[in-house]
Amino acid sequence: MLIPTYDDMLAARARIKPYVHHTPVLTSSFLNELTGAELFFKCENFQKAAAFKVRGASNAVFGLNDEQAKRGVATHSSGNHALSLSYAAGRRGIPCHVVMPHSAPQAKKDAVIGYGGKITECEPSTSSREAVFAEVQERTGADFVHPYNDPRVIAGQGTCSFELVEQVDGLNAVVAPIGGGGMISGTCLTLSHKAPDVAVIAAEPEQADDAYRSFKAGQIIADDAPVTVADGLKVPLKDLTWHFVSNHVSDILTAGEQEIIDAMRLIWARMKIVVEPSSAVPLATILKNKDRFAGKRLGVIITGGNVDLDKLPWMNS
Amino acid sequence: MLIPTYDDMLAARARIKPYVHHTPVLTSSFLNELTGAELFFKCENFQKAAAFKVRGASNAVFGLNDEQAKRGVATHSSGNHALSLSYAAGRRGIPCHVVMPHSAPQAKKDAVIGYGGKITECEPSTSSREAVFAEVQERTGADFVHPYNDPRVIAGQGTCSFELVEQVDGLNAVVAPIGGGGMISGTCLTLSHKAPDVAVIAAEPEQADDAYRSFKAGQIIADDAPVTVADGLKVPLKDLTWHFVSNHVSDILTAGEQEIIDAMRLIWARMKIVVEPSSAVPLATILKNKDRFAGKRLGVIITGGNVDLDKLPWMNS
Repeated sequence: MLIPTYDDMLAARARIKPYVHHTPVLTSSFLNELTGAELFFKCENFQKAAAFKVRGASNAVFGLNDEQAKRGVATHSSGNHALSLSYAAGRRGIPCHVVMPHSAPQAKKDAVIGYGGKITECEPSTSSREAVFAEVQERTGADFVHPYNDPRVIAGQGTCSFELVEQVDGLNAVVAPIGGGGMISGTCLTLSHKAPDVAVIAAEPEQADDAYRSFKAGQIIADDAPVTVADGLKVPLKDLTWHFVSNHVSDILTAGEQEIIDAMRLIWARMKIVVEPSSAVPLATILKNKDRFAGKRLGVIITGGNVDLDKLPWMNS
Repeated sequence: MLIPTYDDMLAARARIKPYVHHTPVLTSSFLNELTGAELFFKCENFQKAAAFKVRGASNAVFGLNDEQAKRGVATHSSGNHALSLSYAAGRRGIPCHVVMPHSAPQAKKDAVIGYGGKITECEPSTSSREAVFAEVQERTGADFVHPYNDPRVIAGQGTCSFELVEQVDGLNAVVAPIGGGGMISGTCLTLSHKAPDVAVIAAEPEQADDAYRSFKAGQIIADDAPVTVADGLKVPLKDLTWHFVSNHVSDILTAGEQEIIDAMRLIWARMKIVVEPSSAVPLATILKNKDRFAGKRLGVIITGGNVDLDKLPWMNS
């Protein structure tokens, strides 16, 4: 297991600078009053590919030597990581292979294609995905970039909180969503060195609370196909991200589905920004734990803005 | 007719500074590629009350002497001006009376109340509105702040393009929506003095094209109850705004309903910001006139972000 270091994060920061945005921090006097805390939203929904994941993906892509780069990169994510890796590969002018179930929504396929990714379809099962992915790698020699359990990816994600603590002084904590743990790990990597007084708090859907249960149990517990509106947060921790979660995270808080949807709608209605459900989990947990956060200065990571504008979650409820 | 001057705009700028946001300018590489122009979006959807109208409303409210202020302000708009005037009056701690038809959507009434406005209901007819409004003014002595045909309001709106040309160098034109003409008049007021080389172009729904037809005819032509998704742009020009439109506007361009909806959706999907339909009319006209704008640097006023999140216009189509 290769643990990324603070220097890796600094190197990532220099490497990805031409390809990613330095995203703004927004505030809302309404949400400050509502929560009793001071919230500083780091808006990665305004990032390239509309997700923080472009940081890690760009670090992996632009860290390849020329020979490996020619053969391209590959992944089997169908979410923001696939978009981000396709974007980064496109900027370097190399192929990005994405293995996706043929049953995936056409909108997701179109988005990957729109960013220049090449899709190879598989059956909607883990065994088919793994077999097809192995075949693609064998055929192309592409470098596998895991969505989160990869030191290059974690180092890249760590650049987000580096910017945040340069943009906002005196934070008491940073609250970020947790799925596989890539963003949280990068946050731990950066803050444990650069701002060790700033607590790292992970926010997770109750219905996909494997990280919460792992944290309490002291070992990784993986869920079997959790169901949540926060579709970016369904994946389990892996060894690298568990290293950071178990060593540096102060606490993991959870929120229910309706609480997440309500928080998402509040962000849209009051901040006038488009964020995906995963991004609303931190605010949902802050609203649920007002006493704990009263008077605190909190960084909140808005992880992304990729959402189906035809199917907004509050329209089902 | 009291025409506001550039000095009035500068005075407004100083007066309203503590109460309004200096809003950011956002760009989108996707939209630049799509249009062939360089677009600089002045994001008044992030403004207090989520609308540029808070600039003019604040200038009116904070320009009142103490005696008048005690009696408050009044209006019969039920849109962004009502929210903005309620907000500004609330900041000064004075009453804001809003006359609205009892048939207005509850969401609009709630929004006005949420910003501290006091609603007096009338029948949904012009005669009832005028009678009730006269009664409210008589009873309270409140100062009438017209949504756009008021020199204080126009001077306030002019602070928006002042900021824009300080934020972005070398603009060829500013494109802004036109309804009653308050924003466009303020833009003309400021740019004709501060940046006379920057053209002012108004963008209007085809289905509410009274300004377009007035511009071509050389005199005000008022529509009778136009129907458009851009509900902030249904009102007609008045003498003060006609003064600016007829003297300083370079051109008025129009866009159809589906073009406006498509442009609005593009902004949401690509820029990840929540904007109201009126705000999308400039982009719709730019997309329709690509040849004309190719290679140009264009300021685009995003006028507001107040929209019903339960009823998005692309969901009807």
